[in-house]
Amino acid sequence: MMIPVVCIVGESGVGKTTFLEKLIAELKRRGYRVGTIKHNVHGFQLDKPGKDSWRHARAGSDVVVISSPGKLALIERLERELTLDEVAARITGVDLILAEGYKRSDKPKIEVFRGEGGNELLSTPDKLIALVTNQPLDLDVPQFDPNDAASVASLLEAHFLHGSDGR
Amino acid sequence: MMIPVVCIVGESGVGKTTFLEKLIAELKRRGYRVGTIKHNVHGFQLDKPGKDSWRHARAGSDVVVISSPGKLALIERLERELTLDEVAARITGVDLILAEGYKRSDKPKIEVFRGEGGNELLSTPDKLIALVTNQPLDLDVPQFDPNDAASVASLLEAHFLHGSDGR
Repeated sequence: MMIPVVCIVGESGVGKTTFLEKLIAELKRRGYRVGTIKHNVHGFQLDKPGKDSWRHARAGSDVVVISSPGKLALIERLERELTLDEVAARITGVDLILAEGYKRSDKPKIEVFRGEGGNELLSTPDKLIALVTNQPLDLDVPQFDPNDAASVASLLEAHFLHGSDGR
Repeated sequence: MMIPVVCIVGESGVGKTTFLEKLIAELKRRGYRVGTIKHNVHGFQLDKPGKDSWRHARAGSDVVVISSPGKLALIERLERELTLDEVAARITGVDLILAEGYKRSDKPKIEVFRGEGGNELLSTPDKLIALVTNQPLDLDVPQFDPNDAASVASLLEAHFLHGSDGR
């Protein structure tokens, strides 16, 4: 069964990660297992120079895994960027995947919005399932205050987590 | 099809990672795709405090993925340590998996050995496919100098990579 994927989109600096933190914490309180995806266009450096796993990667290893009792990390070299669906397919054992970014994907979206200076929404109406804003817009879509992660969690439950046991 | 898994074992400080670096580089030169697994018993900290992905994990996310054009990282919270087979099953798209450590697993093993002070081998004879040592032992197993990663790569090719196209 496909794990549902919902994107949290919004202009840079609008508070996507802050809202996502609250939403993750709320979903965890309700007993769900949650996966998250962060889209990073600039590349990143995770491993520390000199570590054995870093030396594996430097020597040319295509996939480096570090396995410890409480945590597993996998770092994979890619020849091209994966699509959101391909990334989501790597995630197992969760009830819901929340992706930060991916505004051009065809997944359902929650947009975090700050209506200053006449900005327009990034999302098209057909994919927008909720708007997180402190300044309600005249739009036919559920709207929530940025501090009301609980109501957004309830909306996600109703849409995507029905039947999940919420351990 | 199962990807073959070979363990590189040896006492601490004997030069496992140094040998593995040479072996990975040699296999890459021959056109194979290689995955590596590092067993870390103490846990590790990969992500940088303050980063968005770190904030996802801190908020409770069970699986955090960072996706960029050239690299993908997945960090998963575990309730128990995974077995080597479970870890290997997370790796896709490689011809061979080399695991550093896992001396008690039932996989074929290459032991890096330094015969000082009458040390004994960690590996049982039935699983030992090669010994890497600068001091040959009276044993019926192929033995190689620590600088001769090329011959060990040839042995791995003969045993496990026959039929792989070695792009």
